[in-house]
Amino acid sequence: MKNFCLVLREKDEMKLEERPLPEPKAGEVQLSIRSVGICGSDVSYLRKMAIGDFIVKKPMILGHEASGIVTKLGPGVQNLKVGDRVAVEPGVPCKACQFCKIGRYNLCKDVVFLATPPVDGCIANFHCHASDFCYNLPDNVSLEEGALIEPLSVGVHACKRAGVTFGDSVQICGAGAIGLVSMLVAKSMGAAKICVTDIAVDRLKRAKQMGATHTLLIKEKDPKKVAELIKEKIGEPRVTIECSGAESSIQTAIYATKSGGTVVLVGMGPAQVNIPILDAAIREVDIRGIFRYANTYREAIEMVARGDLDVKQLVTHRFQMEESQNAFDSFGKEGVLKVVINCESRS
Amino acid sequence: MKNFCLVLREKDEMKLEERPLPEPKAGEVQLSIRSVGICGSDVSYLRKMAIGDFIVKKPMILGHEASGIVTKLGPGVQNLKVGDRVAVEPGVPCKACQFCKIGRYNLCKDVVFLATPPVDGCIANFHCHASDFCYNLPDNVSLEEGALIEPLSVGVHACKRAGVTFGDSVQICGAGAIGLVSMLVAKSMGAAKICVTDIAVDRLKRAKQMGATHTLLIKEKDPKKVAELIKEKIGEPRVTIECSGAESSIQTAIYATKSGGTVVLVGMGPAQVNIPILDAAIREVDIRGIFRYANTYREAIEMVARGDLDVKQLVTHRFQMEESQNAFDSFGKEGVLKVVINCESRS
Amino acid sequence: MKNFCLVLREKDEMKLEERPLPEPKAGEVQLSIRSVGICGSDVSYLRKMAIGDFIVKKPMILGHEASGIVTKLGPGVQNLKVGDRVAVEPGVPCKACQFCKIGRYNLCKDVVFLATPPVDGCIANFHCHASDFCYNLPDNVSLEEGALIEPLSVGVHACKRAGVTFGDSVQICGAGAIGLVSMLVAKSMGAAKICVTDIAVDRLKRAKQMGATHTLLIKEKDPKKVAELIKEKIGEPRVTIECSGAESSIQTAIYATKSGGTVVLVGMGPAQVNIPILDAAIREVDIRGIFRYANTYREAIEMVARGDLDVKQLVTHRFQMEESQNAFDSFGKEGVLKVVINCESRS
Amino acid sequence: MKNFCLVLREKDEMKLEERPLPEPKAGEVQLSIRSVGICGSDVSYLRKMAIGDFIVKKPMILGHEASGIVTKLGPGVQNLKVGDRVAVEPGVPCKACQFCKIGRYNLCKDVVFLATPPVDGCIANFHCHASDFCYNLPDNVSLEEGALIEPLSVGVHACKRAGVTFGDSVQICGAGAIGLVSMLVAKSMGAAKICVTDIAVDRLKRAKQMGATHTLLIKEKDPKKVAELIKEKIGEPRVTIECSGAESSIQTAIYATKSGGTVVLVGMGPAQVNIPILDAAIREVDIRGIFRYANTYREAIEMVARGDLDVKQLVTHRFQMEESQNAFDSFGKEGVLKVVINCESRS
Repeated sequence: MKNFCLVLREKDEMKLEERPLPEPKAGEVQLSIRSVGICGSDVSYLRKMAIGDFIVKKPMILGHEASGIVTKLGPGVQNLKVGDRVAVEPGVPCKACQFCKIGRYNLCKDVVFLATPPVDGCIANFHCHASDFCYNLPDNVSLEEGALIEPLSVGVHACKRAGVTFGDSVQICGAGAIGLVSMLVAKSMGAAKICVTDIAVDRLKRAKQMGATHTLLIKEKDPKKVAELIKEKIGEPRVTIECSGAESSIQTAIYATKSGGTVVLVGMGPAQVNIPILDAAIREVDIRGIFRYANTYREAIEMVARGDLDVKQLVTHRFQMEESQNAFDSFGKEGVLKVVINCESRS
Repeated sequence: MKNFCLVLREKDEMKLEERPLPEPKAGEVQLSIRSVGICGSDVSYLRKMAIGDFIVKKPMILGHEASGIVTKLGPGVQNLKVGDRVAVEPGVPCKACQFCKIGRYNLCKDVVFLATPPVDGCIANFHCHASDFCYNLPDNVSLEEGALIEPLSVGVHACKRAGVTFGDSVQICGAGAIGLVSMLVAKSMGAAKICVTDIAVDRLKRAKQMGATHTLLIKEKDPKKVAELIKEKIGEPRVTIECSGAESSIQTAIYATKSGGTVVLVGMGPAQVNIPILDAAIREVDIRGIFRYANTYREAIEMVARGDLDVKQLVTHRFQMEESQNAFDSFGKEGVLKVVINCESRS
Repeated sequence: MKNFCLVLREKDEMKLEERPLPEPKAGEVQLSIRSVGICGSDVSYLRKMAIGDFIVKKPMILGHEASGIVTKLGPGVQNLKVGDRVAVEPGVPCKACQFCKIGRYNLCKDVVFLATPPVDGCIANFHCHASDFCYNLPDNVSLEEGALIEPLSVGVHACKRAGVTFGDSVQICGAGAIGLVSMLVAKSMGAAKICVTDIAVDRLKRAKQMGATHTLLIKEKDPKKVAELIKEKIGEPRVTIECSGAESSIQTAIYATKSGGTVVLVGMGPAQVNIPILDAAIREVDIRGIFRYANTYREAIEMVARGDLDVKQLVTHRFQMEESQNAFDSFGKEGVLKVVINCESRS
Repeated sequence: MKNFCLVLREKDEMKLEERPLPEPKAGEVQLSIRSVGICGSDVSYLRKMAIGDFIVKKPMILGHEASGIVTKLGPGVQNLKVGDRVAVEPGVPCKACQFCKIGRYNLCKDVVFLATPPVDGCIANFHCHASDFCYNLPDNVSLEEGALIEPLSVGVHACKRAGVTFGDSVQICGAGAIGLVSMLVAKSMGAAKICVTDIAVDRLKRAKQMGATHTLLIKEKDPKKVAELIKEKIGEPRVTIECSGAESSIQTAIYATKSGGTVVLVGMGPAQVNIPILDAAIREVDIRGIFRYANTYREAIEMVARGDLDVKQLVTHRFQMEESQNAFDSFGKEGVLKVVINCESRS
């Protein structure tokens, strides 16, 4: 069996390379990778060779939103068997630090996360992964949906941190992939009204199709005025999920949110931002960020299996591994939401 | 305007009587009552003149699941206007005790609750009620749905006390009205798998139609064996909502529930019950009861307005006020789930 | 009986004036006011006639941190009797809005709060107050301690919002009265290590005497460096309570706090502040403000009665009502922490 | 170096045996064991060779409440060094199951727990243990106190599950070692009033000395009457921690606890108990059990280091390893609370 992998070598330069078939160590399984979604971080590494302090210093395989089929078991693996179809949770924590012990393993400082330098990703025919971070897919969940559990998990973690519950009004700032998964999850957790805002009409149209009860096209620049427009749509949202990272949007989020409510920061923007902190503080509007996710896979898979949380509709473009360049080039273009690469070995 | 009311005078004896049109006091509104659902407690008062320590000692108007239209404002009322269509939250707490101050006003010892002796209920043409316990209905929520917000609230409170959330497996014991509203709410809060159990086939059929992912007909008497059958259906439920009050069902609930999960007791049975407490304790299965509900109306109305929480399907039988005897007689018969009386004044 | 009151008439102009003895309305009690603490807000109204949007437009009695003795009952009062010694919770909410119903009555938009224009305060011989916002003092809690329950409540609310619990490390920024009550409360809730920072040596000395396990004199301006110095003292605090309102201190609070921890904003500074929001977000450090407090009085009184939460030590200066000018003049001077005015009627 | 161990061979038969010096595997450290407390479970294994489903089928070393000094590092250990003084958390979970991932590792079905058949305990000169379940002791925490972190952890877990917080009234049923550590922890978490009940006068005397604000000698058998006596002492407790396991005491706990409060079941008694479940349910008194503890060691050590949580006073009797028979014989006698064995190697 050959093992082709999509390797980032230089800025804007990636190519398929053959690498040795990886052997599963103790507690690992070897996976025939099937679907891998492209994330903004993959594109950032390609375009800039870095995200913040994470710098690509040596060739790195891209991709971390993946599903696959178990092809071999490493020593001691008992929870999976060859042939199992699984979703891959890309970050494997140390399991020994305080954060791991209390169940917030996404904060583990020693987490090994795919396609985060210097760790290789999994746009490859084969990849070995910790077996307890591979989750069986029920028969009615496809391998493509399995790959989408990763971005869906971001929405789950955001909504859980927000405490979205029965009857909430929820404001989502930004109608990209993360905004839309957050919307899907908020709805499934009981949000009664969900307003999605964006600066692009076509994105809002899609948000509406996927279940937003209200949408608002942002033309206004003044955050206070935008906040008023949101309130006209859905009243004061108890939860606002900010997915753009833009300063003005964070300000809007605070002004719009109901007293006693929560703003969740999902979008990543500038390191420092000017924030109307007094308004947030005296109205007891909590500001909470998220870093990836923890304990989301099992539940997210169950919900996709239930049937009314439809993640498939996120995928607008599909490519074969050999077309990876096209896949990456399409990212961010109008009408493109989620791009998935088929990594099935054909050798 | 005449004001006919359904008055319980003696055991098994109730009749429509005319009473003076009630005048709203400060903070109250006068309502033209429209729909009133019949609850098991109304039937118990009719049949036994008592529920536990609550004893009917003087004639009492029955009914507490109500909606109406505002016909007059008492002094100081600002949140409503004449003509508003409202759902009526039947319990008005003291607003001064510790429980009221912390937001758990259902535990208020001085609550005034409709149709709980000696307080009159509202199967009547007109009724005056605290304006802040009347909730406006959006245009797309009918007055009949408005009356159903009361039983729905029991399901909301049960699911909130259970902490039902994204991806949960939920077991519901009992497919009566409360079991079914709990099921509807659990689904809307993110339950992935919901198993409903009952001893009657037709009830399970309805549960399935209304959204249960699994059902189980209880033939077996051994609680441990029933628990195993539930686990075969949906794995170990993280939450079990017990709506029957039967000892064996409470035992089953504990045995079935996943370690670290929660059993919510909604059904009211005998005062003392034999409980496998050691199993619950060492598996950290919490046991939580509910008493009515608090802070549920606004959100429940929003969810009915959203559209996918369909309470209307609960109503199997509708009667005019003059047919109240038939309405009460139908209660508990096969095929009867929720009975609603139309109280609109025709004088 | 005469009723002298301390009335603010113009900027920097206040004087004792006689007013009619107030009569308690339904649900109110008339109180012979005994101790009233001076708060920074009282001084701000005196010096600037305004705090934010709250503007003194007509003469206003100052003071809201009070205790007294019940001298008369209004109609319907049952929880108190003449002669009762009580602490006065100064904000009386509407009891009808959503916030009141869920127990977060400090967010009620219609709260009537003493000495907040246009509402009169209670530096007066007599004052009438809602009886359910007067709390009986046990025999071993003095009337002066009763007045201190108000500032103590701010610390209680801050620590509860932070979720301070067993074994926590807590950082307190600012050693003024609010910083110190927060420290006392944090300790009583189980904080193992508490570091207090300030720019004044004498304040830190007092913090140490009152129970801080560590103190740090702030000389450094760079927030990241100050954060490092804090970590050297107590490791990464899981909770930071920011009591200064200064931009640099808020930045320090975020940098210092452990991933997954909480920064509580108590100090009120500029409306907009530059915040290292990305660092907070990706380390899941929550930012939570507080507005006054809710549901703190009963518990705070119990804890003072228990004996090891010593609020008396906060009081550095005591004045008679006739010396109010001196009392206000002393505010903010070195060595002055909490100033209390004795309002007992001597007529 | 010789390695003597206290081995249970037959019912009521244990003796010191020499075993090979254990070698630390990857991730483990070898410890020179110093203090080991005797727990009721050790005595039960000695007297009955079983606790519930756990049956001693082959010789087993007793003891699991331990401290020691690191004498050797296994491969890969980085968090400790030779010479470190540590408390030993006796249960090492699988780190891969759902319970481990969410931070409730005490519910892990594959936990390896010392002195729970077939796993050996650590009344031995040397013992190898997972390094991440060994916690460094600060200089001011003794090795004996290190051993006491284990029973203290039960109290911490009980109080955390109860949500003990600022100003609570807490009822503790049973003044044995676990009742008393629960009392110490409840006090350190902010309980204002703590009533301890027992059937033995001398135990209550000790409870009072150690910090109970109230005590009550149980003579009455009727649970409702005992509940009334408790309320006379401290009002209705918001939290009751039941440490006896007796049916009547569990009933008392429910009757006494304030509506909306929590009963925590710590004591282990009969498998099935008759419970006044209706009273608990309609007053929303939650019933929660505990199984051992999770995430308690670090914080418990910090609190002992802080100084006001004095666990040393629990130890009434100390023995050398050679005197183990006497140590076990003393268990349960009047005046005996906690017995500690010194396991330091003298070979």
